[in-house]
This record gives sequence, structure tokens and C-alpha cells, in this order.
Amino acid sequence: MDRDKYLHISAVTRGFSKADLVLKNVNVINVFSEEIYRADIALCDGIIAGIGDYSGRQEVDLTGFFASPGFIDCHLHLESALVTPREFVILAARRGTTTFIVDPHESANVAGSAGIDYILEQTEDIRANVYVMLPSCVPASDVDDSGAVLTAKDLAPYLNNHRILGLGEVMDSSAVIEGQREMHEKLHLFATMIIDGHAPSLAPDDLSAYALAGISTDHECTDYAYAMEEVRRGITVLIREGSAARNLEAIVEGIVAQGADTSNFCFCTDDKHTESVTKDGHIDYCIRKAVALGLDPIKAIKMATVQAARCYGLRHLGAIAPGYQGDVVILDNLQDLKIHQVYHKGVLLDQDGPIEIKPCPEELKNTVHLARLSPSDLVLEKPQGPQKFPVIKVLPGQIITEEVLAELPGQLHFEPNDVHKKIAVVERHGQTGQIGIGVITSFDIRGGAVASSVSHDSHNIIVIGDNDHDIALAVNELLRTQGGYTIVEGGKVYDTLELPILGLMSEAGCDYVTRKLTKMIDKVHQMGVAKDVDPFTVLSFMALPVIPEVRITPRGVYHVGKKHLIVLSS
Amino acid sequence: MDRDKYLHISAVTRGFSKADLVLKNVNVINVFSEEIYRADIALCDGIIAGIGDYSGRQEVDLTGFFASPGFIDCHLHLESALVTPREFVILAARRGTTTFIVDPHESANVAGSAGIDYILEQTEDIRANVYVMLPSCVPASDVDDSGAVLTAKDLAPYLNNHRILGLGEVMDSSAVIEGQREMHEKLHLFATMIIDGHAPSLAPDDLSAYALAGISTDHECTDYAYAMEEVRRGITVLIREGSAARNLEAIVEGIVAQGADTSNFCFCTDDKHTESVTKDGHIDYCIRKAVALGLDPIKAIKMATVQAARCYGLRHLGAIAPGYQGDVVILDNLQDLKIHQVYHKGVLLDQDGPIEIKPCPEELKNTVHLARLSPSDLVLEKPQGPQKFPVIKVLPGQIITEEVLAELPGQLHFEPNDVHKKIAVVERHGQTGQIGIGVITSFDIRGGAVASSVSHDSHNIIVIGDNDHDIALAVNELLRTQGGYTIVEGGKVYDTLELPILGLMSEAGCDYVTRKLTKMIDKVHQMGVAKDVDPFTVLSFMALPVIPEVRITPRGVYHVGKKHLIVLSS
Repeated sequence: MDRDKYLHISAVTRGFSKADLVLKNVNVINVFSEEIYRADIALCDGIIAGIGDYSGRQEVDLTGFFASPGFIDCHLHLESALVTPREFVILAARRGTTTFIVDPHESANVAGSAGIDYILEQTEDIRANVYVMLPSCVPASDVDDSGAVLTAKDLAPYLNNHRILGLGEVMDSSAVIEGQREMHEKLHLFATMIIDGHAPSLAPDDLSAYALAGISTDHECTDYAYAMEEVRRGITVLIREGSAARNLEAIVEGIVAQGADTSNFCFCTDDKHTESVTKDGHIDYCIRKAVALGLDPIKAIKMATVQAARCYGLRHLGAIAPGYQGDVVILDNLQDLKIHQVYHKGVLLDQDGPIEIKPCPEELKNTVHLARLSPSDLVLEKPQGPQKFPVIKVLPGQIITEEVLAELPGQLHFEPNDVHKKIAVVERHGQTGQIGIGVITSFDIRGGAVASSVSHDSHNIIVIGDNDHDIALAVNELLRTQGGYTIVEGGKVYDTLELPILGLMSEAGCDYVTRKLTKMIDKVHQMGVAKDVDPFTVLSFMALPVIPEVRITPRGVYHVGKKHLIVLSS
Repeated sequence: MDRDKYLHISAVTRGFSKADLVLKNVNVINVFSEEIYRADIALCDGIIAGIGDYSGRQEVDLTGFFASPGFIDCHLHLESALVTPREFVILAARRGTTTFIVDPHESANVAGSAGIDYILEQTEDIRANVYVMLPSCVPASDVDDSGAVLTAKDLAPYLNNHRILGLGEVMDSSAVIEGQREMHEKLHLFATMIIDGHAPSLAPDDLSAYALAGISTDHECTDYAYAMEEVRRGITVLIREGSAARNLEAIVEGIVAQGADTSNFCFCTDDKHTESVTKDGHIDYCIRKAVALGLDPIKAIKMATVQAARCYGLRHLGAIAPGYQGDVVILDNLQDLKIHQVYHKGVLLDQDGPIEIKPCPEELKNTVHLARLSPSDLVLEKPQGPQKFPVIKVLPGQIITEEVLAELPGQLHFEPNDVHKKIAVVERHGQTGQIGIGVITSFDIRGGAVASSVSHDSHNIIVIGDNDHDIALAVNELLRTQGGYTIVEGGKVYDTLELPILGLMSEAGCDYVTRKLTKMIDKVHQMGVAKDVDPFTVLSFMALPVIPEVRITPRGVYHVGKKHLIVLSS
């Protein structure tokens, strides 16, 4: 800080002038000394001026409460919430997460740099700290058709932005390990910054080679043994507990059972929906769950605060100490960890008021570019001869799939029946216009179709149905709304959740989104899809060609293990 | 690392090609997981390629030994060793310290930027990692007369040097806290880097104000209670164990007794002589002593390695993991911690060979600029009237002093007697030519004088004697040798340890320096100085006007507590 600011704040520190605000008589959680002691926290100009005995122009008596540094989510995609980034951040900040390290790779896959700029702009001057990791894998792999390609050259202009901390999750681990030139240009560009990893199941030597490339973190660990393999290699494990993937219990149980040192662990949510933030919490939920599993509360809070801040080089965040930013969470106790108040830069956050939605530029609401479909575009020819056809099998409660080989019903062309439905991906960025068509099972929709423009990571239009007419109508409905989730039944649109921002997000607010989504999910289940299948989550992952085992892309059906297309689009 | 290097090393990591060197079957100390397991360490291009089962072009069987990351000394002044910087570093590296974070403020006080450049140049391309913190306090305070003044403007050109990590020990704590403009210009310049502190005994609110200014570390803690006050404020405590100040026992005993978390502690030596490095060790001595006091060996090794590296942002150092620099110390066990071998960048260090001395530029060997002294320059007039004279009292085994008021012997002028001796400081940078003259007690030299050009921090010539003739001769001898330690007895030079490099260091090698110094110290004790007074250490600190309570400067006798001169030079 400059000298004038220092003189102003240090006068408070030394007791010569009154603080802007004093949090009186609170049990301060010191993440350095691992002590808790009763004291006053003096805040001035948004900074913590001192901890001790202070008086202020405003004083809040917090006798009996606990003060923690604001929580940090080390890795998340704001787009996953389906609402505007600003709205989600404010919602989660009310639960004590004052710092968000986001990877805008959904937006970037649709709109390239403009997508990154949108996330930066939405989260600027907001009552939380939002930092950005630049997307490393746009597109996710070279078999995918995204709306943009981001090379090292495209990312370089962002390096001087103080909100950019490094390179986002490097999903293409084989490009790293095999030394692919474009990937290494990015790794080199970010060599002095933080590089987030994404390496769910590498063999030991491959994991070492991945670490050798300078990868600092990973949030894909699903068990304690693999987490420790990463820790041994100097990788910080971001324990993920989101709406889809939930790895906290498995890892924290291991830590507690082994009495392991926790200094190389932090928390993240990756993907989290607004209703679960409202219901369960955000990073506070991670801490609460870890404590319930037997982790020492101060160790858990360190994982959510100072360790995360140190991992990402955020020297002004993560602690209640002189000079740190005034981000403080007031908790009722260290077991329930109920949020009483949240302060960001020394100012109390509103907990209940309406959240103003910051509008999106019009050009980002017009990103679905495809020709209207007709049923004749959706013909899938049956293979000639005795060979069986590769079918994508959905597994309940999971996003991985299995390949099964089956004889298909129908004469010359595949015709859906009770077991086998049609799945299609329509390139929607106006580039190739290709349509990938395949067969899916264990997604038993009857008499209609469901479609989505949220379809990781390229976000083409994905659709599943039992007849070509409804499939075509569902895709055309999302062309009309410029993105969203839709259900078509018997030749009519049943309902559509419009997601016009990049085809990923709604401006209608989280209450509207939650209400409509709940109703639509119910409807899909009524149409025959099993209750243990989350229809829109399944839809959104069926086209991601980096997750085992079979996926569909606009180019055809892709086998992730074999690394090639097993059914080509016509 | 660039792609070609990555491909070369990762081929070793993945077992496709042989390592340059493999340390076989060693007990690897993993500072991340806090585990020890038997494995091979594969080294390639100076980098750790992998830990596991490896083969190499060269293999060393280390069955039964332990492998630690190379040790890090977080704060030291190379000049204190009295030998060339290169020689000291190599000597200490043989004891396992592979990384040195040095503050060249002795050289800088004599020669400004040229002094910093000398340290950088001496320690470049050396078999150890030497980083530099830029001196923050040249001169140490505004009552001192150094050979140079370094402002923020003078330090700025160094910022892009990758060996510069930040700003060196900020001794002038009141300049920080009171918001002195020049100090804050420096703090601002280094705001995004590391700023080392020096705050031995600040009141709680002042310590908070000091931390508020962005100070990251302190090495001046002498007890556990104060160390914890610093830790609570987010300051990393560098536990100091050098030749003069020894604080390890007091702090580590507290840590062990309280079961305190050690993540905010590291080690440093500050000032260490070559003979104690050879005899006891360097950072290995700190670890050994901490373990003997009951600290867990892995925690102690973490303090000496990964924690130090993280504190100073050295992401490639401090651990045995893929991608880390190949700095490895081989120990016989975790109690004795005897050094078996040291590797730097994957190459074994020679343990016994002679150390080549890199010559110093001639201009840095010509820094004592003063007019020859005659006894008449050394007259100290007695105060008129009944007032008593402030006398500097030396305390055994310490560098702090006491002020005592005494009636002085002699008629018009002070004449030394058995109790009171004369002390003088002669400005030697050719600037003011002033001579400060005072009275000292408990330094009972008889029949001669001792002088030194090592005199913190300005390194003027300091001298104590019992007669003006020998005092003048001692100063003139150091003019002749352009610096050193000298003893004069009965009108003749008894012996001189020449320190011609900036008046601080010898090019004659550590054996010569140790032999001569030992003999000279004996001689001073024979001349009457008590055995518990280290004569040249006492001499070297009597002019440092930031250490309590009374000091002498070329401007006169200075009271540190009162912050003014109490006897003015004529």
C-alpha cells in the first residue's frame, strides 16, 4: 500500500485513531498460530488494521461467535450454475466464500476471448474477489468442434491483468506428457504462474511426468490413495465437493484415518448449482462435512483459507492479521459452522436482498448458428452385414459411460425402440454444420425428445429422443431460443428453460431457473427416464471426449480409450 | 522448462531412457507427505526426473542412508565470514546448505551498488544457489556515516535480476512505523516481492503496524513468546543460530513444549564464521540441534527446506519431487544427521578439495580513505563543571551495551586508566573525515590498542586503546593495509589480519584467517580484556546505532533509546 494509506491505517493499528468498524469480543481463528482467542478485529479502508483491543466509529458485539478468514473456492466454473456469473458469486459469498478462482472455459469454448472477457466483466467491482485461470484446453481435445480455439498467442494478452493467476485445468494430460507443441507453448507461457491440473487416473510414472511439467494442483482425485500420490509429487490436492462430483468424504476419511498432514490440501466445488448453495452451502459445506468426518476444525479452515491463498499466490487473503484484506466470516460455532455474517473488504454483506442481474452484451446472446433441422437430417444407417453396432450405455448416478455392442432394430435405418434411443450432436457454432448420430441405452425417454445447448466442453446442441420428428423439433426450439434445455413431447414443445447467454446461462434469476428446472426434470422422469438418471446432467456430458468410455461428437461416435472415432458421421 | 528439455527429462521419468545419475535404494524424505520410503531418485539435466525404480548411466547405492532436499539458509551476511563470499558458500554447501539467501548490506554500506555487484558476481555460476535481498538500510540510520546511501531509485535497476528476491532486513522499524518517506518508497517498490524484517522487541501494536507494512519475515526473535507474537501476525520466523546470536534453543524448546505448528518457522544463520561451519555445521547444525531438543526430524527438515523455499517463492527448490532442482543431501540417519554426500543440480559436491578463490576487482580493495592520524587528533576534552560523562559499558557475551555516568580521570583531557579506556571511530569513506571519541569500560586493554575496519554497519575504523599513540598507530596500520583487524602494543604493530576487500574480507583463505584470528584474540586477552569478551566482535558492534543502548559514531556518542547524540565530536 502507498504511504498515505499506510499512515491512515497504521494510526488505527496503533490506537491513535478510530477504526471504521470493530468486530468486538469475537473468538478469532488464527490460521498461522492455530489458536483461537477472544479479541477485537479493527477494520480500516477495507483492510484488517489490527487484532486486540480497539474502538471504532461502528462496533458490532460478537461475543460468543467465531471469526474465520473468508473462504476460498480454488476451482469452479461459474457457467455451471446456469445463472449469470455475478448472481452466482453473490449467492455463494453469502455463504462465506469471499474468493473464487474461476476457469471460464465453458464461455471460452463458445466465444473464445469474448467469453473470458464476459466472465471478467461480470465479476468486476463485485462484493467478492474473483480471479481467473485462463482456459488451457479450448477445445477440450482435437476431436471436438468448439466455437473457438485458444492458443498460447490468444492467452498472452491477459498475462498483465492482475486478476489472472495462471493456466486453468490442463485436461489434456497426454498432450502434456507426450510433449505436444501447442500445449507446451501454453505451459511455457505460464511457467512462473500457477498451472491447475486435471489428471483423474494417471499411472505413477505418467503422473510424475505430469508434475514435471509444472502442474501445481489437481481437483480430480476421487480417493485418498491417489490424492497422496499427487501430494508426494508436490501437487496440491483441491478436494472437490460440487453438485455432480463429490470426492470429499473419500479423501477426508483417509486423511483422518492416517493422521495425514493437511498442508497440501484445499477445497473446491468445480460445478455447483444455485439450489444446493442455498440449501447446503458452498465452501462452508466442505468445511462442515470435513469436520463432521473428524478433521480438526482449524485444519479444515486452513484448507479453506490460508493454504488456498498461498497456493495461488494471494498474499493479501486467507488470514485475519494486520494488512490482510478485511474478508471475515462470522460463525456460530466450530461444529455447525452456521454463517452468521460475512464481511468483504470490511463491509457486511447483505444476506437476503434481491440480487441485481447485470445484463449481458447482445452479441453473446446470439451464439447458436445452425440450419433448421428436418427429420431427414437424422437418418442413421444400419451397418451392413453381421457386425454389431456400438451403443453408449448410461450408468446411473455417473457421467462415465460404457460401450455395449448390439444388433439394432429397424430395416435399413436405425429406429428407436424401448431399449435403444437416438442421440445426436449438432455443431452449432456455424462452422462445420456436421451432425453426429448414435445410439444410447439406459436413457428410456418415450414419445419425445430432450435437448440441451449445455454440452461439455464445446457446447454443441445435444439431443436424445425416440423419434426423428421430436428430435428435430427440440433442436429447432433451441435455435429459436438461442440455447437452453428443452423437452418435446408428441410433436409439441412441452417446456424450455431459455439459456441465451452463450447458450449456457439465463438472465432470469436463480429462482426462475431452479423452479423451471425442477419441473422439467420431473417431466423427463415421467417420460420414462429412470429416477437415478439426472437427464440434463447426462445430456451435458455425453459429448465430452475426454471422459471414458464412449462419447458422441459432431464427427461421430468416439471411443475415449481407443482415441478414435468408431462411427463416422455421414 | 522448454519442450525439448521436457521431452528429454520426461523420457527418464517414464522409464524410456536412462537417467544421468540414480541414487539407488535411499530412504527418501518426502516433505509434502511427511513420509520416508525407500526408492531410487533419478536425476537428469540437474533436475529430479522421478522417484521410484530407475536405472541410470551412473548409479550410487545408498542403502541405509536418508535423502533430504538441500537445506536453505534464509538470511545471512556472507561478509561476516571474513573470507570471500565464494569460499564461504562452498564451505557451507559441503554441509548440505545448497541455497543461500544473502543480504549484502555490509558491502553495500562501504561501496553501494558496487558492493552488491561484488556479492552477485562472486556467487554467480557457483555450485550452490545464491539469492540476494537488496539492502534496505544503507546507512543503517540517519545518524551514521556510511560509504554510500541507497535509495529506492538505486535499488530499482536490480528488480529484473532473477537472483533478487526482495528487500533485505528492514532494521529501521521506526522509519516504517512512522511512515518515513524514503523507507516507504522502498517498501512500495518491493511490495510484490519478499520483505525481510528485523524487529527484535516491538510493542504489540507497533509489531502489528510493522506487519501491516508488508514485512514477511523476522530473524531477530530471541524467545518463543515473541516468536509467536510474530507468527500470529503472519510473519514467518527465521530461527537464527549463528556464531554471535543463538536463538534456536529458546524458540524450539517453546515449540516442543507447546506442540506448536511449525509451518511458519524456518532457519537462518545471519552471521557465521568459517571455523564453526567446519566444526559444527551450518543449517545441518540447526536441524540437528532442533531434533536434539525434541522436534520431529521431518518437521525440522521441512523448516530447512520446503517451508523456506515457499516463503521466498523458490518453487523449484526445497523438495525431492519431479521437476525440482536436483539438490539432495544424503544423511547417515535422522538423529546424528551426519552429512554423507551433497548433490547440487544432480552433481556430487567435492567435500575436501581446496577451494579456489575468485579474485576481487582492485577498486574494491582500496576503500579506506582517511588522513593519517596523529595522537593530537584524539584529544577528548573533559566536561566543565560537575557533570558526569556518559561511558559505554561492555556486557560479557553480548553486543548490547549500557550507559554508565562517571567522573573521568585526567585534568583538561580524558586520560585512560585501568577502568576507562578510549574508544574512537574514524570516518573512512573519505567523506566527512570526522572522528568520534568516547570512553568505554569493561574492555580492559593495557599497553596498546586494537582496531577494526569491520564495524557495523558503516564500517568506519573503530579502535579501543589506553593511549593515543597506539590508537593512532592502529588506525594508520589499517590505512596501510586498507582494512583489517590490528593489534598495537607499546608503539609497535603486533599483528594485523588484512581484510582488503572493502575493508571486510580476506583473500587469503579461511585457514589463514582462522589461524591468525585465533592467535590475535588470544593476544588481546593477554593484554587484559576479559576472556568472556570477544574483542573483535565487540569492536565491530560498538558503532551500530540501532542496537541499545549507547554507541559511538564519527559524529559522537549516540544514545539509541533517546535517539540523539549525547557527546558531539569536535
